[in-house]
Amino acid sequence: MKLIRYGDPGREQIGVHLNGINYDVSAFGGDYDEQFFGSNGLDRLEEFVKANEGALIPIPEGARLGSPIARPSKIVCIGLNYRDHAEETGAKIPTEPIIFMKSTTSLSGPFDDIVIPKNSSKTDWEVEVGVVIGRRATYVEESAAMDHVAGYVLHNDVSEREFQLERGGTWDKGKGCDTFAPIGPFLATPQEITDIDNVRLWLTVNGKAYQDGNTRNLIFSIPFIISYVSQFMTLLPGDVISTGTPAGVGLGFQPPVYLKPGDVVELGADGLGTSRQVVKAYGTD
Amino acid sequence: MKLIRYGDPGREQIGVHLNGINYDVSAFGGDYDEQFFGSNGLDRLEEFVKANEGALIPIPEGARLGSPIARPSKIVCIGLNYRDHAEETGAKIPTEPIIFMKSTTSLSGPFDDIVIPKNSSKTDWEVEVGVVIGRRATYVEESAAMDHVAGYVLHNDVSEREFQLERGGTWDKGKGCDTFAPIGPFLATPQEITDIDNVRLWLTVNGKAYQDGNTRNLIFSIPFIISYVSQFMTLLPGDVISTGTPAGVGLGFQPPVYLKPGDVVELGADGLGTSRQVVKAYGTD
Repeated sequence: MKLIRYGDPGREQIGVHLNGINYDVSAFGGDYDEQFFGSNGLDRLEEFVKANEGALIPIPEGARLGSPIARPSKIVCIGLNYRDHAEETGAKIPTEPIIFMKSTTSLSGPFDDIVIPKNSSKTDWEVEVGVVIGRRATYVEESAAMDHVAGYVLHNDVSEREFQLERGGTWDKGKGCDTFAPIGPFLATPQEITDIDNVRLWLTVNGKAYQDGNTRNLIFSIPFIISYVSQFMTLLPGDVISTGTPAGVGLGFQPPVYLKPGDVVELGADGLGTSRQVVKAYGTD
Repeated sequence: MKLIRYGDPGREQIGVHLNGINYDVSAFGGDYDEQFFGSNGLDRLEEFVKANEGALIPIPEGARLGSPIARPSKIVCIGLNYRDHAEETGAKIPTEPIIFMKSTTSLSGPFDDIVIPKNSSKTDWEVEVGVVIGRRATYVEESAAMDHVAGYVLHNDVSEREFQLERGGTWDKGKGCDTFAPIGPFLATPQEITDIDNVRLWLTVNGKAYQDGNTRNLIFSIPFIISYVSQFMTLLPGDVISTGTPAGVGLGFQPPVYLKPGDVVELGADGLGTSRQVVKAYGTD
């Protein structure tokens, strides 16, 4: 199943993506949130969709897509989880996962603008596969970790490198600005993905290829990451773990390449669709 | 006004603290959450309390107190914001605020147990004053920052030092374990606090004084911090900024002193009440 949310920011309605078409399922009730994932919502929704097959109404033409999940309790990210990306940043290969957090107010839709923050000169991109948690996870064993997965999403972990690396303290400062987490276009349940350990993910800026990686090159696997994070904090249904980005971010170039107003970022991952963001300066339309 | 929440974890009812007594105000409706603070809830509650004065019912004897605020979108913390604490950890005095985040799943009640995580040997304490945001804040000027404050809370920023400092990555790994954010006993609105820049805050373990500081020694003031954080992320009503801890954490001693099962942590701050946590090992009753 593929889940979407559509409509104005903060007022999204729920839907599903079936055979290339987005259908409204707001009659199912609720939102794709902690309550939904935590109460067997995926199974109930699947029954609802089956029961209403043929009667579902396509979403209005031109409707905005929101993040396919409602604001979660947290967005946890894994840093430097592809060897080639760790190398390009000049960092050591981590011996255990690096964890940081994105403010959940950074969440935005897959085709929303990326807004360069005030006083920013180093806004950068990071294509990632995000894992959406389906069941509460505390001290989960690696062997049981995949039972806690509701699905996967495409995520651009937009990052301000000066805020992240040159302003003191932890990475969180450069990761949580508004619009810094375009997620979607849809959440794909595990059944939709042939092999999550062999997903190509790529990103272009103004049509030029910058990132082209594959989850087979993750340093720490998805079940390992879920188990690992759950040793340090409880993961709730609907929470996102973003699994890291492959090489090709702007920071890694000599000289570095950063986003500027008017740039168009496009990204995609096998089975997770594509997204596209236009870059704007703060305070412009 | 002083706000409390009481009842079983996750099912708290709302109340107010008046003349030393906690009263139920669940008839007011809702919870002390983003919706409440963002819709002029404090003013509406004040009217409700006035209109019902004399008719309010004290909360049941022995009722558990929860965090006085419902789970916020984020708990942002300022690191090393007291000169003496920065020195005891061997860190440089920061030239601008250090930001990190606590997982909101770490939130707990002021008299709940602190649970030492599995595989932890360095669980430590940090008494702090937390600022609760009352109005959405994005790029707020320092001069206008206090207009965005709903009130203040006492907070024990419990921290696992090995997870925080020795396991790679950012501090978030050691800050967001379950029970690591006992908040309360109440939220005090600004009117309740004579001078937020002169609040004594203290912490004892098993009756022995460890921390005894004053917000007058904050390196970065509360309005500066609110303005600063709002440059990097949007603060929502109900969000918490914890302003840092003075000297006297376990990490600062030679040899360091860490919490062990059976320890009793008591803390307090002028005008913000006191709290008390018993320390337990994970998996014990």
